[in-house]
Amino acid sequence: MLRWLTAGESHGPELIAIIEGLPSGIPVTLHDIRTDLARRKLGYGRGARMKFEEDEVTVSGGVVHGFTLGSPVAIRVGNTEWPKWTEVMNSEPIENYVPSAGRGAALTRPRPGHADLVGMQKYAFDEARPILERASARETAARVALGAVARQFLGALDITLVSHTLAIGPVRVPEGSALPTPADVDLLDADPLRCFDPETSALMVAEVDDAQKEGDTLGGVVEVLAYGLPPGLGSHVHWDRRLDSQLAGALMGIQAIKGVEVGDGFLTTTRRGSQAHDELFEIDGEIERSSDKAGGTEGGMSTGTVLRVRAGMKPIATIPHALRTVDVATGGAAAAHHQRSDVCAVPAAGVVAEAMVALVLANAVQEKFGGDSITETRRNLDSYLAAIPDA
Amino acid sequence: MLRWLTAGESHGPELIAIIEGLPSGIPVTLHDIRTDLARRKLGYGRGARMKFEEDEVTVSGGVVHGFTLGSPVAIRVGNTEWPKWTEVMNSEPIENYVPSAGRGAALTRPRPGHADLVGMQKYAFDEARPILERASARETAARVALGAVARQFLGALDITLVSHTLAIGPVRVPEGSALPTPADVDLLDADPLRCFDPETSALMVAEVDDAQKEGDTLGGVVEVLAYGLPPGLGSHVHWDRRLDSQLAGALMGIQAIKGVEVGDGFLTTTRRGSQAHDELFEIDGEIERSSDKAGGTEGGMSTGTVLRVRAGMKPIATIPHALRTVDVATGGAAAAHHQRSDVCAVPAAGVVAEAMVALVLANAVQEKFGGDSITETRRNLDSYLAAIPDA
Amino acid sequence: MLRWLTAGESHGPELIAIIEGLPSGIPVTLHDIRTDLARRKLGYGRGARMKFEEDEVTVSGGVVHGFTLGSPVAIRVGNTEWPKWTEVMNSEPIENYVPSAGRGAALTRPRPGHADLVGMQKYAFDEARPILERASARETAARVALGAVARQFLGALDITLVSHTLAIGPVRVPEGSALPTPADVDLLDADPLRCFDPETSALMVAEVDDAQKEGDTLGGVVEVLAYGLPPGLGSHVHWDRRLDSQLAGALMGIQAIKGVEVGDGFLTTTRRGSQAHDELFEIDGEIERSSDKAGGTEGGMSTGTVLRVRAGMKPIATIPHALRTVDVATGGAAAAHHQRSDVCAVPAAGVVAEAMVALVLANAVQEKFGGDSITETRRNLDSYLAAIPDA
Amino acid sequence: MLRWLTAGESHGPELIAIIEGLPSGIPVTLHDIRTDLARRKLGYGRGARMKFEEDEVTVSGGVVHGFTLGSPVAIRVGNTEWPKWTEVMNSEPIENYVPSAGRGAALTRPRPGHADLVGMQKYAFDEARPILERASARETAARVALGAVARQFLGALDITLVSHTLAIGPVRVPEGSALPTPADVDLLDADPLRCFDPETSALMVAEVDDAQKEGDTLGGVVEVLAYGLPPGLGSHVHWDRRLDSQLAGALMGIQAIKGVEVGDGFLTTTRRGSQAHDELFEIDGEIERSSDKAGGTEGGMSTGTVLRVRAGMKPIATIPHALRTVDVATGGAAAAHHQRSDVCAVPAAGVVAEAMVALVLANAVQEKFGGDSITETRRNLDSYLAAIPDA
Repeated sequence: MLRWLTAGESHGPELIAIIEGLPSGIPVTLHDIRTDLARRKLGYGRGARMKFEEDEVTVSGGVVHGFTLGSPVAIRVGNTEWPKWTEVMNSEPIENYVPSAGRGAALTRPRPGHADLVGMQKYAFDEARPILERASARETAARVALGAVARQFLGALDITLVSHTLAIGPVRVPEGSALPTPADVDLLDADPLRCFDPETSALMVAEVDDAQKEGDTLGGVVEVLAYGLPPGLGSHVHWDRRLDSQLAGALMGIQAIKGVEVGDGFLTTTRRGSQAHDELFEIDGEIERSSDKAGGTEGGMSTGTVLRVRAGMKPIATIPHALRTVDVATGGAAAAHHQRSDVCAVPAAGVVAEAMVALVLANAVQEKFGGDSITETRRNLDSYLAAIPDA
Repeated sequence: MLRWLTAGESHGPELIAIIEGLPSGIPVTLHDIRTDLARRKLGYGRGARMKFEEDEVTVSGGVVHGFTLGSPVAIRVGNTEWPKWTEVMNSEPIENYVPSAGRGAALTRPRPGHADLVGMQKYAFDEARPILERASARETAARVALGAVARQFLGALDITLVSHTLAIGPVRVPEGSALPTPADVDLLDADPLRCFDPETSALMVAEVDDAQKEGDTLGGVVEVLAYGLPPGLGSHVHWDRRLDSQLAGALMGIQAIKGVEVGDGFLTTTRRGSQAHDELFEIDGEIERSSDKAGGTEGGMSTGTVLRVRAGMKPIATIPHALRTVDVATGGAAAAHHQRSDVCAVPAAGVVAEAMVALVLANAVQEKFGGDSITETRRNLDSYLAAIPDA
Repeated sequence: MLRWLTAGESHGPELIAIIEGLPSGIPVTLHDIRTDLARRKLGYGRGARMKFEEDEVTVSGGVVHGFTLGSPVAIRVGNTEWPKWTEVMNSEPIENYVPSAGRGAALTRPRPGHADLVGMQKYAFDEARPILERASARETAARVALGAVARQFLGALDITLVSHTLAIGPVRVPEGSALPTPADVDLLDADPLRCFDPETSALMVAEVDDAQKEGDTLGGVVEVLAYGLPPGLGSHVHWDRRLDSQLAGALMGIQAIKGVEVGDGFLTTTRRGSQAHDELFEIDGEIERSSDKAGGTEGGMSTGTVLRVRAGMKPIATIPHALRTVDVATGGAAAAHHQRSDVCAVPAAGVVAEAMVALVLANAVQEKFGGDSITETRRNLDSYLAAIPDA
Repeated sequence: MLRWLTAGESHGPELIAIIEGLPSGIPVTLHDIRTDLARRKLGYGRGARMKFEEDEVTVSGGVVHGFTLGSPVAIRVGNTEWPKWTEVMNSEPIENYVPSAGRGAALTRPRPGHADLVGMQKYAFDEARPILERASARETAARVALGAVARQFLGALDITLVSHTLAIGPVRVPEGSALPTPADVDLLDADPLRCFDPETSALMVAEVDDAQKEGDTLGGVVEVLAYGLPPGLGSHVHWDRRLDSQLAGALMGIQAIKGVEVGDGFLTTTRRGSQAHDELFEIDGEIERSSDKAGGTEGGMSTGTVLRVRAGMKPIATIPHALRTVDVATGGAAAAHHQRSDVCAVPAAGVVAEAMVALVLANAVQEKFGGDSITETRRNLDSYLAAIPDA
């Protein structure tokens, strides 16, 4: 079983992440992690912050000379803005500390759509700073760093992930469009919105421009694909061992995600049974599926076809034309406090979703195949595949 | 932390479920459990099985004289058909056992859309019986039984659940329709499809009739509402402590569910930020929300408004006009084996979804408020609510 | 990861246990479970209860025709005394129920050394019945039933457990005595105290006789051995993955256990380093250890030699000459209430300890080797062993 | 539920630890953590390493201005020797890396009593460096850092821990000696062996001197006491919820621990029942216990008296006069490789044991009382205590 934790506040000195349970011998370098962290910043419609938020990455444990040891892997992602925040966010008491009018000012006008208000109620704070620091999507950088490690593990077993943008606000890739493959990742990352359909991408750019002009924000839908999975990850025997249950939990656990689908998802609910399933055929001694409406799972297990899951992201809740709220210090009506933010973070959400899927799949692989070195895990996987009878 | 496990096969002697971690003093009777098990059988379009599958319920541990002890609660749900299956499903070896041509015949034509094929590959069986026995939705009866206990726990804290049917195939309740409240549960249970909108319900009945006539099956969408939640269940501090993550995992862990939404879900992804969030107002010293597009969570925490989540169910995959498959014994093309089934199980899925939501919420309540007796948990909840400052 | 839960009260209708996560294809019959349940009743110095507590065992799920399916295994152990307790322990409310002077009388004189008093405080009861019903060692029958299943899993991998009694009260097997092997199990089970040293066994019998004559009770020490383990179960990389940590938690989780040792345990703490460790030698191309003072673990991992762990049991706390206590109904001094009990339950504790060790080892095997069928797990284990280089 | 992970290798750049699940408002400063890290280095018989291993501590998340936020707390403990190890332990591949004859030389002579050999077999390494780096007791610094945070949480609830040394090799504090209280901690920390009995302490010093002269090492026994616990932490209802099970697992999860006791432990197993338990008396309306042989738990729950647990540590396995082993590179007999080490680490083990007990108790408190701010947890604890009826 893989276990992992992340820590760190948005404007603290750094994010820290630990993952425990990976085998030895997985190739992992700073380059792998930095690449995914850079991909997380992609996307048309990102604000200024993304630019000066250049990540300093350190691997503090679990990796020597480019390969995992089997011990917990620890990664730090530094915050280059930290010098501006050393007073406001210092872990130590500061004598005679007076919150400055600037960064340290009490945030008493909770933003609708954010953790601000309910977080203050739950954790007994009278302003939102201690809440929003952790609720911020900045935390996903830690997950992406761990996801890069999980991806290296999967890669050593020839399992590859791809993510792309399906929709920005109401602009959506037409149903039935071709799916990107691992060969298309560079192309996707080069597209302003990580959209595989050039025509739709152009419309998405226009939509972002329009929202920006209106002082508004946008959500959308991303899809993650996994190629090369063996059949039989996850299990039908208990609800929480179902791979789709684990994927749904992982995707809905990303900030701002409000909907999750496996395969054709809600569209499938409108089809009749005779049109909704992937029929089976024998081709050259192998059993093949006619289609992949199911998204690569049956009975909560990977089928061996392409895994396909989707996450729907609400529009960013920090809006230039601020929403109405209540000032908790006065009880009076107010405009929600506003922090610098993006028009649209959907392309980045795709990279975060990839990371979460990678972590779920890495865990499922480890559960099914065991192994304490990548050689052992690979050997167990290969002998399992070899033992599946031909049709 | 609540922990629970279910066991039992579809045609075995019984289902068994254990839940560990509940406080003492929760009122639980056989009537409570039987009521929910009966509700699970509701719905126009259910096949014959539902009728003779009358549940015999036993509470074997954790409850005395109608109240929980604080020890694990164990429930058995007997299978009244068991006498017909004592040979095929006997736990003991049977000397000179020859699978009969009837119930015991090897199931070598795996059904598309089911766990059959991949389950055989994973667990190394040459026929599907050992897989489908556990993958069957019959198992949800065990969850509903536990859900009834969780609901009693929540009820003692004045938290109430309601579920209803939003869509059957393409027939859907109009956007913006009124939401049912706890007072409407009997009305909902009396509706043929557990739909709150009478006009839509009539259209749904027609849709089921049509599908049945065509030898086809239907899916749909259900919604679960929770009334009376305090703010602050779940947490923003780690992805897997987000209440919506836990709800999504629980709902996607139900057989045949392919999509999950919190609040307006995917619809929200098409809105602009200025239209997508629930603004805050001060009313009589309390902070109130203008709307509930978010579905009652912000930052992964309950806000104290109505919780609202949805699950999308694919059409039943066992179809009278059988789907094409491969006979794994011969390698040749075949029609999928067919077992007696329903046209549409969506109304029942609403009751199962209620149970899963109840279990997630019971766990979240226990995590936040602790307590080993219902008196203690209630006292902790009340003093928390009293300590939240007015606006 | 194996997960398991037990439920049921001492005088309730039955105990119920579920274990989730085992592979398919493990041979399991009622005979296997009954054998271990019968062994749990062995031992000189057991009271009358053990005789009429004949266990009715049912396997309700997870096993068909003598082999596991890969789904959760559920076992029920009936209570043959149940007819006498149907009123006192009924799960349903009983109208006009008046606790009878007999079985139903309120137990307000908590027994020192038992869960009675603190259980009442924690769970908010004014008498001890709701506590002692679950705290009773009767619950260990459920663990032994699951342990029998775990033992079958281990047996299919040629891993075998043996337990024996090291001490009864102050009477102890001499240091350096020979260890029993799997071939000695029948001999052990036939010994009145499951002691491998006949001379010590005779002294133990005399000690039990003497304690009984004095109206007193006895504790002692048991040892569990595991033969055939591969090297590398558990891990040094995190504290809770250490096999000895898991074994210690499992053994200390048995009722009345107050001390746990791995290998020579506390004796080793008195030795100097030069005398305390097992040196390594090359013998016929294999690396062998000179001794097994460590008890078969180094760095929290099995070394491949015999695993050896010990548990120390306090004397039974329900004593014929009752201990002094306070009547919580009156606040006055009183004699602790007394229920029928044994002089000494140490031999039985050895069988329970075996079950707990079996469950820990089964989990460790599953974690290291994965596998969803016993064939797959065995294949992974064999290929791991084959890959370990010769010295 | 508290969750925590540690990461980092002995000669890597730093240790990293994250703990998740603590409430907000706990006072935590660098001083608190540094104090416990310094206490971990106490003890007569420590080698040179302890001196230059001065810890640089950073709190990277979860704490602002000296109080926890409710988010995960992350702590880094830097390794001041890191500059000497940047090549050998670099996380990045090093071009044309040739292991130097010094620090980088392959460790092919596994040390008996260490993880070396079995770790290499499990994780598929041909030398011991990748294993011993993580198996080293250096890792306990990360646990002590987290333990300092847990201790602050407990302290805010008036729960205080004390640890002391009971035995060094065969030299042991006499049975029945007085127990140290929280007021004695400074005295204990000032004693060369953290022993509360001055006479025994002097004998221990002589024992260490003698072992050092002989080129040998020593083990011993430590005891941890917890003052101020409420009754009812842990539970009798399931084996793994028993507080003593959790404590035993935590203590046995410390490097080199081979035995664990609760209260009088193995001594109790030699007593008869009439002499082994703590009788109950009414004193001024409270129920009091006559003694604390049980160590403060009954039925797996804290009783409210002093909690008392012990851990037995084997002598250090890296011995100046090296033990015999096999060189895995040649297959020939060899002397085990030797790294700088201590004669005796028992006093330090007491501080580590304190940390592990603090973490277990913090989790048990959180489970029973819930709460997301220290105010809320404290309020729930107080109202629970107030509701326990007088005798």
